[in-house]
Amino acid sequence: MYEYPEPIERLVEALLKLPTVGPKTASRLAFHLLKAPLEDVEDLSRALNELRSRMRSCERCGNYSDQPECSVCRDPRRDPALLCVVGEARDIAALERTGEFRGRYHVLGGLISPMDGIGPDQLAITSLFERLETEPLEELILATNPTVSGEATALYLQRLLVARPQLKVTRLAQGLPMGADLEYADELTLGRALQGRSRIS
Amino acid sequence: MYEYPEPIERLVEALLKLPTVGPKTASRLAFHLLKAPLEDVEDLSRALNELRSRMRSCERCGNYSDQPECSVCRDPRRDPALLCVVGEARDIAALERTGEFRGRYHVLGGLISPMDGIGPDQLAITSLFERLETEPLEELILATNPTVSGEATALYLQRLLVARPQLKVTRLAQGLPMGADLEYADELTLGRALQGRSRIS
Repeated sequence: MYEYPEPIERLVEALLKLPTVGPKTASRLAFHLLKAPLEDVEDLSRALNELRSRMRSCERCGNYSDQPECSVCRDPRRDPALLCVVGEARDIAALERTGEFRGRYHVLGGLISPMDGIGPDQLAITSLFERLETEPLEELILATNPTVSGEATALYLQRLLVARPQLKVTRLAQGLPMGADLEYADELTLGRALQGRSRIS
Repeated sequence: MYEYPEPIERLVEALLKLPTVGPKTASRLAFHLLKAPLEDVEDLSRALNELRSRMRSCERCGNYSDQPECSVCRDPRRDPALLCVVGEARDIAALERTGEFRGRYHVLGGLISPMDGIGPDQLAITSLFERLETEPLEELILATNPTVSGEATALYLQRLLVARPQLKVTRLAQGLPMGADLEYADELTLGRALQGRSRIS
């Protein structure tokens, strides 16, 4: 069996650990990088090296940041009464891209999933309740995924929050995605769309 | 518009320069690397860094190597009478994987392509003819791609080699790929398959 020279083999092996990268893609990328401008390869190597040494979690909300507080928490134009609770820091980017949200975030760092051994104790729930004490919050949006784990996590938080009737607790709307076709929608989504129907006149 | 923290932005930008990687794949990879074992990220960074500093071209054939001569040229079991001429060093890996070839290689470093400004002078043809003088070669396999550039390059070499009637010059067979369906084969491939038909009884 032919082996590439060791530097190529090592790069292929490292690339194989990336999601969706199989043996063919890994060697195609390696051969591309052998011919690419040297500067591009050095940039990629340096960016990887600095990613983990420079990135940290925002001390307030848990978002990715290269400073003690993330850009959202530092932004004084953000509404301090509005807090959106998400499972993972990467969910923040998706919500920010909508341009619809002007509050701040709280990252739980996961979702309750007994199968994976993740219970409420592994999530940033204590720090969430500390924020409820110290920040002038009026609405808490439970923006966990519409999945079994996300629903379980939202339900768990909802029960803890019953003790604070003055706080408005909301959940993202569920229904048909834009561009969907009724005929091909799954029953669960269509059922939620029916339950959540809104009056238009 | 929400921007990721700078270390993530820089990694995403560097990943976007890879082939087949678009904005969605780049951010998915970046977020994966933020959570992956630190060792894996360091390995990838180091492999990228060493790829270009440790890799060189084999002095004899132009194959990728981390030593003055590549593993194929160093291998004493290779038939010194058989030489396979390829366009790019990465073609060697494909041929080696067949396990069918026991000779050595010569990498041209490209194919004749006037549109891209690549003429015979840019290819490793002088060194090929030097090898014809110094090595006991009996057969030269012109294994350039079955494309316009590959055919033009093979034709160019074939004409130069007319002056050496004692040397056997061959070309890879063209025809239907394994598993192909006659109904869907393109006319050119099917035409070549007809021309190259072989007697079975």
